[in-house]
Amino acid sequence: MYKIVQINAGVCAADGFFADGISAGLKPDGAKDMAFVYSDTLCEIASVFTTNKMAAAPIHHFKAKGTFQTNFVLINSKNANAITGDVGVQDINEILATLPQEAINPVMSSTGVIGVRLPKEKIIAGAKHFDFSQKNPHNAAKAIMTTDTFSKEIALRVELADGKSFTLGAMAKGAGMINPAMATMLCFMTTDADVKAQEMQSILNRVTRTTFNAASVDGDTSTNDTVMLLANAKSGAYDATAFEEALHAIMHFLAREMVRDGEGATKLVTYEVTGAKNDTEAEIAAKALSDSLLVKTALYGEDPNWGRIASTIGASGVACAQEKLTISFEDVCVYEQGSIYFDAQQEAKASQIMQRDAFSILCDLGQGNGKFTAFGCDLGHEYVKINADYRT
Amino acid sequence: MYKIVQINAGVCAADGFFADGISAGLKPDGAKDMAFVYSDTLCEIASVFTTNKMAAAPIHHFKAKGTFQTNFVLINSKNANAITGDVGVQDINEILATLPQEAINPVMSSTGVIGVRLPKEKIIAGAKHFDFSQKNPHNAAKAIMTTDTFSKEIALRVELADGKSFTLGAMAKGAGMINPAMATMLCFMTTDADVKAQEMQSILNRVTRTTFNAASVDGDTSTNDTVMLLANAKSGAYDATAFEEALHAIMHFLAREMVRDGEGATKLVTYEVTGAKNDTEAEIAAKALSDSLLVKTALYGEDPNWGRIASTIGASGVACAQEKLTISFEDVCVYEQGSIYFDAQQEAKASQIMQRDAFSILCDLGQGNGKFTAFGCDLGHEYVKINADYRT
Repeated sequence: MYKIVQINAGVCAADGFFADGISAGLKPDGAKDMAFVYSDTLCEIASVFTTNKMAAAPIHHFKAKGTFQTNFVLINSKNANAITGDVGVQDINEILATLPQEAINPVMSSTGVIGVRLPKEKIIAGAKHFDFSQKNPHNAAKAIMTTDTFSKEIALRVELADGKSFTLGAMAKGAGMINPAMATMLCFMTTDADVKAQEMQSILNRVTRTTFNAASVDGDTSTNDTVMLLANAKSGAYDATAFEEALHAIMHFLAREMVRDGEGATKLVTYEVTGAKNDTEAEIAAKALSDSLLVKTALYGEDPNWGRIASTIGASGVACAQEKLTISFEDVCVYEQGSIYFDAQQEAKASQIMQRDAFSILCDLGQGNGKFTAFGCDLGHEYVKINADYRT
Repeated sequence: MYKIVQINAGVCAADGFFADGISAGLKPDGAKDMAFVYSDTLCEIASVFTTNKMAAAPIHHFKAKGTFQTNFVLINSKNANAITGDVGVQDINEILATLPQEAINPVMSSTGVIGVRLPKEKIIAGAKHFDFSQKNPHNAAKAIMTTDTFSKEIALRVELADGKSFTLGAMAKGAGMINPAMATMLCFMTTDADVKAQEMQSILNRVTRTTFNAASVDGDTSTNDTVMLLANAKSGAYDATAFEEALHAIMHFLAREMVRDGEGATKLVTYEVTGAKNDTEAEIAAKALSDSLLVKTALYGEDPNWGRIASTIGASGVACAQEKLTISFEDVCVYEQGSIYFDAQQEAKASQIMQRDAFSILCDLGQGNGKFTAFGCDLGHEYVKINADYRT
């Protein structure tokens, strides 16, 4: 038996973790653009990175270290240090070499424009203003934002039956290039649970599939996607089931927050696919829906155009047939196994549901027991505006 | 030796073919919405249909006929007769049964809204106004349009060395749901060449890969995609090489016209991928570029953001590496094998190229000899507008 309680303090919530965000002049408007996460003792690490073959320099730098422990992550926004070649990795080494000796095996993470070298001097100068004794999770969460319109933070405390407890804290950024195969999303999680890297990594892999990898804004997979989980064991407590449940709650919350903040998004839509031949086919169909431009624009138009939903499932390649398919908007069934339910009344009901900020579309394929839930958002004029003018 | 000459008369250009378009009241504004293509003798048929598993009723109707010859195609716009189940096929049979006996083994093709039964009575009444002796290809091409802003027609005459000649004519519609795996595009082609169905089918399959299947507007594959080629042999002439070249020219022209008319598109962009590990990987990379929302919105913003191009290639899963990649906008190289060329001058030059209505982006992966050329368009505010409000 255990209890999971939501607490404050974001990425600093767990014992021994510190974080802050400052302005180093990378963003033109004096906004915060550099953050650190620091633990006063060394941490076990679990991580998931982008599958993009043009992975950014920080990811090459991290992976080249092999198996290691660290207590320090330096993060900058505005510049992704991606497709910058060997000099990108050299820049990281030079920057990290200037940090105080308290930072052991430090790593770096970046997000922003691709293909431009890091403003190294500004970052080195900025890092000199870090105060490792600060617990300012909000500042850190704000500093890692790019096109995000709000910062994303959460912390949970797990209270075990024996009176012991451990805590998980997290911050994330991401509002575009959020894709079924990970996202330009950065997510830093900290915990004082007493868990080893290998076990933590298996749990992180499982939870990633149904949270970050089930979220889509635009179907693109960035060069910089990073999820990092640091555990310093300070609580002396751990329970595998409780840990996985709390981690899932944190990552599910953050994934939905990222989709809700999707560039130009006005709605958070959950696609619950059931009755697929197997879970893999359910995942393919659910992600096809959350990625379809025609579905996304219909959502934006608040048009319960179930024909596009059926067509998208048909185009995804999974086993399906019109006479076995059922489609509902929440509890309003708009198509059932070959019957076209659509009449003015049903349309009006479904349209009303679509006016909500968040709702579910349920598709049963009638083929088997496979199921998967993906989440995505609509695509409106703001998406075009944000992405057409991103670099200017 | 042969000569290929462009001529007028679209889908009626070949000997013995007739076509017209009328208004049957399916479109609310009295615009033309029904067309026919008729040959006064029976034709060999080659065809390519959507791979969508929710294929529309006209496709089920066609395929159920097995091997056959026909001389008549009835086409309507505004209603796709898709996901309408068995009654959708029954409706087709009832409609076709009312045609004059000159129409032998007639087939039907539809485009428009999914999931609504055909307005059968209107279509039957409309078909009674068809005059099979008419050669009004423009009317036919206009009648099959949905969100198209212009009609698409072309005809070519092939003059052989022995003084004989044959002709190919075509019309097409399509401006959205145009996808690497075919499109809501309908394309009807006619020829008086003396060619048998089986040979014509192999040629059509080959040409489809590098024309319609290389074109993308939004990455969606519709329920109704149809390419039909009818040959009535009336010229008594045929040359396989010349026929394939002319067919390629016709389908390449129509595919580019469809992309140029892409919903809300302002630019036609050609993605020439070379140096891939093999042709299949080149095709994957080229189509990933033409489908990427981030690339499409950068094009709309006339921002030579080569980082997004590199990232999209990296995310596509093909063999690639930043130190072997080269990216050019026409003759302006913006990234070469790990060197970041980008400076204000190059950026200005590339931006100028992007202001054109049509231009090429060349990506050499430096991995092998694979190559493929895809074409796509930008994505702007009009796309969202058209698709958010499509049914209203």
